[in-house]
Amino acid sequence: MPSTKSDLQTKRVQLRASTALLAGHGHAHPADELERVAAYIREHDITPDNYGTGKVLEEFEREVAELLDMEAARYMPSGCMAQPIALRIWAERVGVFETAFHGTSHLELHEEKGYSALHRLKAHLLGDMGRPTQVADLEGLAPVSSLLIELPAREIGGQLPTWDELVELTRAARKRRIRLHLDGARLWEAGAFYGRPLAEICALFDSVYVSFYKGIGALSGAMLLGSRDFIDEATLWQRRQGGTLYSNLAHIVSAKMRLEPMLARMANYRASAQEIASYWSLVPGVTVVPAVPQVNMFHLIFDGEVEDLMLARDRVAEEHGVWLLNYLNQDEGKARCEITIGDSAAGIPSAKLEAAIAAFAD
Amino acid sequence: MPSTKSDLQTKRVQLRASTALLAGHGHAHPADELERVAAYIREHDITPDNYGTGKVLEEFEREVAELLDMEAARYMPSGCMAQPIALRIWAERVGVFETAFHGTSHLELHEEKGYSALHRLKAHLLGDMGRPTQVADLEGLAPVSSLLIELPAREIGGQLPTWDELVELTRAARKRRIRLHLDGARLWEAGAFYGRPLAEICALFDSVYVSFYKGIGALSGAMLLGSRDFIDEATLWQRRQGGTLYSNLAHIVSAKMRLEPMLARMANYRASAQEIASYWSLVPGVTVVPAVPQVNMFHLIFDGEVEDLMLARDRVAEEHGVWLLNYLNQDEGKARCEITIGDSAAGIPSAKLEAAIAAFAD
Repeated sequence: MPSTKSDLQTKRVQLRASTALLAGHGHAHPADELERVAAYIREHDITPDNYGTGKVLEEFEREVAELLDMEAARYMPSGCMAQPIALRIWAERVGVFETAFHGTSHLELHEEKGYSALHRLKAHLLGDMGRPTQVADLEGLAPVSSLLIELPAREIGGQLPTWDELVELTRAARKRRIRLHLDGARLWEAGAFYGRPLAEICALFDSVYVSFYKGIGALSGAMLLGSRDFIDEATLWQRRQGGTLYSNLAHIVSAKMRLEPMLARMANYRASAQEIASYWSLVPGVTVVPAVPQVNMFHLIFDGEVEDLMLARDRVAEEHGVWLLNYLNQDEGKARCEITIGDSAAGIPSAKLEAAIAAFAD
Repeated sequence: MPSTKSDLQTKRVQLRASTALLAGHGHAHPADELERVAAYIREHDITPDNYGTGKVLEEFEREVAELLDMEAARYMPSGCMAQPIALRIWAERVGVFETAFHGTSHLELHEEKGYSALHRLKAHLLGDMGRPTQVADLEGLAPVSSLLIELPAREIGGQLPTWDELVELTRAARKRRIRLHLDGARLWEAGAFYGRPLAEICALFDSVYVSFYKGIGALSGAMLLGSRDFIDEATLWQRRQGGTLYSNLAHIVSAKMRLEPMLARMANYRASAQEIASYWSLVPGVTVVPAVPQVNMFHLIFDGEVEDLMLARDRVAEEHGVWLLNYLNQDEGKARCEITIGDSAAGIPSAKLEAAIAAFAD
């Protein structure tokens, strides 16, 4: 047994590197994607973007706008940049600097409240923390210029409202003249749940943000979509926030070359997540949230202490060659983690997966 | 002669591609730098940065902080992000949301006034537009929390105050308890003029911004430097502005691997700019600003119409194989351009350069 905390850490890094990963897209060398991008640039004779202009960028923006049937699109370095910009624009349109979103929104939890510190927006946090936003959450809500809806809601295990609930919610918001913004950080992953084209989901919204480095697996990057005049305004804000880079070619090309092939895999990722979740649901002391994953992600809630559970994870890795989870957060006497299924799980035979997960209980 | 504007444009793109460039670092394929970065990552076993953390990032920040003898540093995607953040922090420290900078500052001309729209700062524009900021410009200035000084001042041909003028200006500002921020977009290029270590220049300032894609020639990126507490605050603002990317490895590595070797070339670039400027000063109808370049850049002001001058540029390219300038802006009956000398000019024999520039007058 390793004698110090640092030895244990080193052992775990080595162990992880030598096992099959349950979550994510698998082991990769950080130079791999850059080499693929460089080869793609040579093959397609791509000239660099320059301060937010250039053929490769404009073509990619048009491609995503067409896919989602939105009028216009703007590539941005991050969603953290894109989303507060959208809410700021909707606030200025009606002079109401108040917005609303779920209490677990990325804007509330992970962005140092840029929406407030930079854009002077006040946010009303909606609803029950354990379920997605519903139409009932609009009752008694102060006048707001916009409502942000995250599909799927990441912090609650990737839950989605049903199609009817979503239509009801967006209709009720429209009746109140509230602009609808879609936090589509994992929108690509939500298509299979609704069994509808992504454009049909986007049609319910005035503005849409999508991400390229999660399910799509690109180096970084995001896109904001909406009407032409909305995107023109967003482009000004992007410049103001320092998001119009001299060149961002590697990130743009990485997203562009991966989008189509990765979209084709999303339904498989979801099916794989459902299979894996079903194995976990049989492990005593483990709760899967949601019980049946709606997208390619779910949460695991364990009875027990984090360090004991980590040792169980290490043991399974040594005995079965499968790395079941990266981390656990202590959460009111339980331990919790998020599992997102990508390319990696598909490379592990079902029987091996099932045996490894079952062995976690020993 | 090409029959249409589009034919002419195509001809010029081909002509430029087949000639030696006077300005910049020369012709390069956009995949070249990505391939160099990928090779460097493999050679040095670099693991990716992740949301603004990671060994490669922290080591690079420490390296630049040590070089400039500042306490702490933070890599950011752009200067357009870094500089308003610095001014915002200084404003909050004393509760004065007013700042001052030269009328040609990048913040005033090229950033859609993010300093005002995002950070609610009011700017007092200083001085004579044709010379750098001087101590006299502080006379009668309203109370401000910060003063931004750009060294060298790009929009006026890369002019610098003398060392004594700079010391006098910064001392006078300190007496008024004004925080000093250095816009060092081209600080690397200014060292040779002062004949002092860059750290000695930075010691006059409370905060410093430097850029990696101009003289250094990296893909993109910038760094903000200051005290530890200042940088901790700046890191929060970077997150709020959407500048903490999932990964920004290519840009970081490109800057890191180029910094030291490119710094060693700056004095040569400056000497080359002075030689080239001396040839231009002999051409009738051309004014060089400043008459003797202080860094590796200068402006050229031509009598005449832009299109006539462009045709002269094309003719020289065809006859001498040297591409003298990329663009010209009409400026009160004159035409003006900026010339920045990098690696490219060093590959052209002096006699060829001199002959090409002399031929421009014909």
